Amino acid sequence: MTIFIVGLGLMGSSYAERLSQKGHTVYGFDSDLKVLEKAINDKLINNDSRIEKLKLSDLIILAVYPSKIVDFIINYQKLFKKGSLITDISGTKENMLNKVEDILREDVSYLSHHPMAGRAKRGYESKDSSMFKGNNFLIVKNKNTLRYNIEILKRIADDLGFKKTHILTSDEHDKNIAYTSQLTHIIATALMCGNEKILNETTGDSFRDLTRIANINEDLWTELFLSNKKNLIDSIEQFEKKIKLYKDLLITKDSNQLKKELIKARKLRVKFENNK
Amino acid sequence: MTIFIVGLGLMGSSYAERLSQKGHTVYGFDSDLKVLEKAINDKLINNDSRIEKLKLSDLIILAVYPSKIVDFIINYQKLFKKGSLITDISGTKENMLNKVEDILREDVSYLSHHPMAGRAKRGYESKDSSMFKGNNFLIVKNKNTLRYNIEILKRIADDLGFKKTHILTSDEHDKNIAYTSQLTHIIATALMCGNEKILNETTGDSFRDLTRIANINEDLWTELFLSNKKNLIDSIEQFEKKIKLYKDLLITKDSNQLKKELIKARKLRVKFENNK
Repeated sequence: MTIFIVGLGLMGSSYAERLSQKGHTVYGFDSDLKVLEKAINDKLINNDSRIEKLKLSDLIILAVYPSKIVDFIINYQKLFKKGSLITDISGTKENMLNKVEDILREDVSYLSHHPMAGRAKRGYESKDSSMFKGNNFLIVKNKNTLRYNIEILKRIADDLGFKKTHILTSDEHDKNIAYTSQLTHIIATALMCGNEKILNETTGDSFRDLTRIANINEDLWTELFLSNKKNLIDSIEQFEKKIKLYKDLLITKDSNQLKKELIKARKLRVKFENNK
Repeated sequence: MTIFIVGLGLMGSSYAERLSQKGHTVYGFDSDLKVLEKAINDKLINNDSRIEKLKLSDLIILAVYPSKIVDFIINYQKLFKKGSLITDISGTKENMLNKVEDILREDVSYLSHHPMAGRAKRGYESKDSSMFKGNNFLIVKNKNTLRYNIEILKRIADDLGFKKTHILTSDEHDKNIAYTSQLTHIIATALMCGNEKILNETTGDSFRDLTRIANINEDLWTELFLSNKKNLIDSIEQFEKKIKLYKDLLITKDSNQLKKELIKARKLRVKFENNK
């Protein structure tokens, strides 16, 4: 397949590396011309990568910040090949997809996806195409989605090394992601800077695990949080309720109920582990 | 050194394995006689392990639940060798150490420690003496602590494979641990069962990392939480304040301040990583 990847940061360059290895013809573009040059020299993308190659591409992957997606489409969709499929890797979907629907040319298709993988690093130099292995790949459909386009993204997911592909609506996606991905980043960063008096020496595996993602890309995540504000606030409040419950059980020294809560968590976690 | 390990669960058996490999004479005891027999067959402990061997032991390591420590001392200290050193691996210190001080024979010493390592599993069968590698070993001193005894525990920490040894008071220990270890377990279990509607399919590395320790030993942790109640509630409240700050910034759409908070977290995390 002829693929055009827009944005060669951590994700875009990792996509490019892997999809080139898999035999696709991959063109790429990045607003940082030094990055573009490196990607060509590293043979991640075709050495004739110019924005005009959009005209030849069957699949266009927008691996840019969510706020740039609509602008890119407005500016460049005149170059999209008739019948091509456009997708993006954005971490929130509903608001962005509503805007895309309003402006997109009618002779191309749009099918969004979300690769559930990442690294607590950013940029081209951090690329690592092994990060997809064993992870979930979410395809965000709507009522007009063609089965044919779903098959194209499934093939890409396979080529990248993802373990499972799941199909869901943008509303389901954003509600779920608010809890499993955005809330976790809120927690990690809050934990990291919630107590300035803690000693590094008293940390172990648990603190290290829970703060790994506090090494955060603040530009990207501020955008993601705000673009999914309502769902994220709901998730924070669900979590706050649970934390308050624990606190109340401590205050009343209710060891039986505390133990029951921990058993519930353990069983859910074991089930989660077995379900992987 | 002749060492007696009381309790051959996850931690005690891992200690026994490693300390035997390092050439110490290791006796062991477990209230589950099948476990005791296994540990002898696996050559983790001396095959003449009987409780009377306390009489020969220079170092006694109490690797039992915190609530059992005082009882064990009351019942068995008549067998402790004169001049021997007694230690424990308990995750909270102050309350327990106050009780120990009241009852301990005057011709033996007590110096508590906390191995900052673990596994989200329990019991003899989960033993893994590689878990100590690269981790922190905390020694909890008081005003009467002899330098000689600190050196003994430092040697044990080295033999077990710990990277760094730190010395602190029981008050410092319990305040710090409340945040870095107990709060993290509260967070992980709350996150795991805070939203029953989430789909497994929408989870990625971050949710997996943050809930690893939700596979919790509920008996042990209920005890640890309640024995350090005041400090843990303080830590929960510090964390709650930070979470509320994030929520307020989302509600007011204050992207500048939100970004500043994330930058702070990122810098602290990078510093933490470099400090390891």
